[in-house]
Amino acid sequence: MRKTIVGVMGGCTADERTLHHAREIGRLIAENGWTLLSGGRQTGVMQASITGAHEAGGLTVGVLYDEDRELGADGLDIVLPTGMGAARNIINVLGSDVVVACRGTGGTTSEIALALRFGRPVVLLDFDPGQAFLEAGASEVKYSLAETPAEAIQMVAGYLKELGRI
Amino acid sequence: MRKTIVGVMGGCTADERTLHHAREIGRLIAENGWTLLSGGRQTGVMQASITGAHEAGGLTVGVLYDEDRELGADGLDIVLPTGMGAARNIINVLGSDVVVACRGTGGTTSEIALALRFGRPVVLLDFDPGQAFLEAGASEVKYSLAETPAEAIQMVAGYLKELGRI
Amino acid sequence: MRKTIVGVMGGCTADERTLHHAREIGRLIAENGWTLLSGGRQTGVMQASITGAHEAGGLTVGVLYDEDRELGADGLDIVLPTGMGAARNIINVLGSDVVVACRGTGGTTSEIALALRFGRPVVLLDFDPGQAFLEAGASEVKYSLAETPAEAIQMVAGYLKELGRI
Amino acid sequence: MRKTIVGVMGGCTADERTLHHAREIGRLIAENGWTLLSGGRQTGVMQASITGAHEAGGLTVGVLYDEDRELGADGLDIVLPTGMGAARNIINVLGSDVVVACRGTGGTTSEIALALRFGRPVVLLDFDPGQAFLEAGASEVKYSLAETPAEAIQMVAGYLKELGRI
Repeated sequence: MRKTIVGVMGGCTADERTLHHAREIGRLIAENGWTLLSGGRQTGVMQASITGAHEAGGLTVGVLYDEDRELGADGLDIVLPTGMGAARNIINVLGSDVVVACRGTGGTTSEIALALRFGRPVVLLDFDPGQAFLEAGASEVKYSLAETPAEAIQMVAGYLKELGRI
Repeated sequence: MRKTIVGVMGGCTADERTLHHAREIGRLIAENGWTLLSGGRQTGVMQASITGAHEAGGLTVGVLYDEDRELGADGLDIVLPTGMGAARNIINVLGSDVVVACRGTGGTTSEIALALRFGRPVVLLDFDPGQAFLEAGASEVKYSLAETPAEAIQMVAGYLKELGRI
Repeated sequence: MRKTIVGVMGGCTADERTLHHAREIGRLIAENGWTLLSGGRQTGVMQASITGAHEAGGLTVGVLYDEDRELGADGLDIVLPTGMGAARNIINVLGSDVVVACRGTGGTTSEIALALRFGRPVVLLDFDPGQAFLEAGASEVKYSLAETPAEAIQMVAGYLKELGRI
Repeated sequence: MRKTIVGVMGGCTADERTLHHAREIGRLIAENGWTLLSGGRQTGVMQASITGAHEAGGLTVGVLYDEDRELGADGLDIVLPTGMGAARNIINVLGSDVVVACRGTGGTTSEIALALRFGRPVVLLDFDPGQAFLEAGASEVKYSLAETPAEAIQMVAGYLKELGRI
């Protein structure tokens, strides 16, 4: 059976708390035996979540913005450069069973929007882009707001149970 | 000199008021001599805005979700099928000098998010995905809320002036 | 009715003869009232064909490899940056009624391959990537070898007639 | 350290010999401890190579043409739907350390062309699209023709040694 994939999205730059959250969520994903999917760059939420998952022995996949494989984050197992820029955002979404969104800017909110559009449940970790945006996303949106990584991972597990993945 | 391009985004399905707005904004874009860029499908805001521009003698360009050219809207001058699905959203954004967003769901909000991320000014026509989302988009976001097509087109003109396009 | 689009593909760098051919084919496309579609960069076959079409008063469309609009060729009317790199090759192919391929390297041959795969007739202008490659392309391939721009444009016209475009 | 990835390309439909080759090459990739990357569909060379690798206990990654995850081949570990159609070909190429090309049509030759363009060594297994095409691919092309899977895998190993991957 295919592996269960949890996507982690978030800003290229991030404050200390967000980086801490990203690293924790990466660790928890790995400890649950799930695969981490992200944009795979060496910065911000991407690097932090990969570091967390890698240190916990998890499998990590990165779909890069860039053509150059060398720009992949430390700790990535599967490096997929695309050279496609923001067009690759849809892959991070479609490839995930559930998406965790940490604090970010337009790149991150575009991924949340696509997740809602394509029916991927979204857990928002300490990041609230507002109900008007979230409700606009789709007729039957699935999203939850979490304050801590521990709370977020419980919500992820809940969605995965609904999906019959665990 | 290259043509000035105004992108029009919005839902595949839309209520009467939104369709009326889309058609009007298409007409006004054409009357100002600007080129209309959109997702180019035969439904909703895409078809309505193209119809409006086409009837007013404007040039219309559609970057389709689909591989099949026959799915292009009536009145499209330049039909570019992509077969790329939602990955083509970024082209609608990067190709536009200014983006007008009508009511839509996740596809539309993903395009607004990308526009803010890549510095394309956004005019929101009778559609408010909320300040939290809009402010998250970028450090220096440029967006305005319009209630009517006439108001929206004035805001578009204002942004084009700032950009030195008119 | 939508505009008839002829795609021109070819190398980013090119020798004098190839550049001359590209400029001529651009001019002939414009004189026939067709729209020129290309990768739209400022170099090689792309710039030369756009210059030829632009000087003859034709409409030119460029789907750029890059995110940055400023990299569009001189004489482009419709500039569509994608930031998608080589992934945008498929758009040049799917958007064309007929493809003209001038001398090029792997980018150009990938576009010829896609054209054969997706049923777009290909005219090879002074460029022969070999029958083994061309025949492998599809079960029912449509391609012709031309030695001069004048010969190429006649072949383009022939394919457009078959397609009911002229 | 990131995993070593060998891409396997080839036709959606294939004759018995080609399917046998694909399955064998998949098995050999897995037995060498490398990861298999492919287009990931349930047909032809894609399914056969994934079956071979999966049965030998290897890790398999598929970057799908389609939006729908359910179209992923049996035996895929990491399923990445893209909904991008042929635009995703570049990911199969850029993600591979070395590419093995089995018999195919235009989709496959487009991937070979991109591999040559982006400097990924190509091993052609019982498939010869001709020297004219291969030499056109780039100024410094790296490709080899193999008659059997065993011969192909030796060539793959040779390229991986050159690249410092083994």
